[in-house]
Amino acid sequence: MLKLYYAPGTVALASHITLAESGADYTTERLDFKTNQQNSPEYLAINPKGRVPSLVTDHGTLTETPAMLVYIAQSFPKAKLAPFDDAYTFAQMQSFNSYLCSTVHINHAHKMRGYRWATDESSYADMKRKIPQTMAACFALIERDMLRGPWVMGETYTICDPYLFTLTGWLEGDGVDIATLPKVADHRKRMMDRPAVQKALAEVNG
Amino acid sequence: MLKLYYAPGTVALASHITLAESGADYTTERLDFKTNQQNSPEYLAINPKGRVPSLVTDHGTLTETPAMLVYIAQSFPKAKLAPFDDAYTFAQMQSFNSYLCSTVHINHAHKMRGYRWATDESSYADMKRKIPQTMAACFALIERDMLRGPWVMGETYTICDPYLFTLTGWLEGDGVDIATLPKVADHRKRMMDRPAVQKALAEVNG
Repeated sequence: MLKLYYAPGTVALASHITLAESGADYTTERLDFKTNQQNSPEYLAINPKGRVPSLVTDHGTLTETPAMLVYIAQSFPKAKLAPFDDAYTFAQMQSFNSYLCSTVHINHAHKMRGYRWATDESSYADMKRKIPQTMAACFALIERDMLRGPWVMGETYTICDPYLFTLTGWLEGDGVDIATLPKVADHRKRMMDRPAVQKALAEVNG
Repeated sequence: MLKLYYAPGTVALASHITLAESGADYTTERLDFKTNQQNSPEYLAINPKGRVPSLVTDHGTLTETPAMLVYIAQSFPKAKLAPFDDAYTFAQMQSFNSYLCSTVHINHAHKMRGYRWATDESSYADMKRKIPQTMAACFALIERDMLRGPWVMGETYTICDPYLFTLTGWLEGDGVDIATLPKVADHRKRMMDRPAVQKALAEVNG
């Protein structure tokens, strides 16, 4: 049995959808960020980083989205969510997810989490002002060079897709009009039609 | 044949060492960051992100360190640089590398690359002042919870080790005294004794 710790509106949605796609038996537990539950002693004992998601497995607890997505895919091979026997295609998939993790998500985080990297209110405001520009630049690259269509890796749905879907959900709040990104917009629409996406969203919002 | 594009002092060293460890046939090409060669039309045709490292393979070009490290390990299995047949251990390894990529490296990048996320000189100065604190916090977590010793994953050397080694090389410049981190300091010393590390460093510095 797998257990996912998540909070609404966070990157945990990518793992949540992937669990739903995989056919795994899983449960979820919601953390309340408003009461800073992610930094409670109980949760820090599960994930000392004080972040979501965390995935509790029979072997121990995993953190970091790119690692968790591959773990779920590798543990439930019948769902065919990643190309493990093709080193180059697997690397392209990982490269996409690593870009989302270390560039796109990081840019987004500068809107609300400037305190991680600076101390002055004026710096936080400066960072916040730049979000529409940095997020638009990332998604222009994704639209032009990275998203093959209809899925990220082309004809085959992989663990890149729920990850991209999760981050495209932030575009409106980050001041980027998804209508300027036709391939990304089409991807988002296709994802919304998938039963696993609907199931995960219902669990988060229900 | 593999070809690595790198610049001295960058995260490309992790892939460089891993190539040397793997037994691969490889060549390297140095980019001159002082003349902004990473943003030249020639290099942007290889890597539209304008960053290093890039790894040119017979199949195409890969970017993003965590993906490249796994690709090298998977392509040269005799070197046994990653546990592909154990999903949980593989995920722990990936989780470590993802933390280096999306948290530790990102913190470090705020010293010289504040323009990625802000616009005002005062914000850059503010970010720069926080580097010793954010890097010390990351490495305290690595020392306490993540680096098992003697290697990152315990008794077995993996692709986590050259990645950690590359980032520990930034500590002094980031205002963190490695002597306060005995396990990290021991790891750095052990890495320096490896022929592959010496070979890669000689190629970068030679």
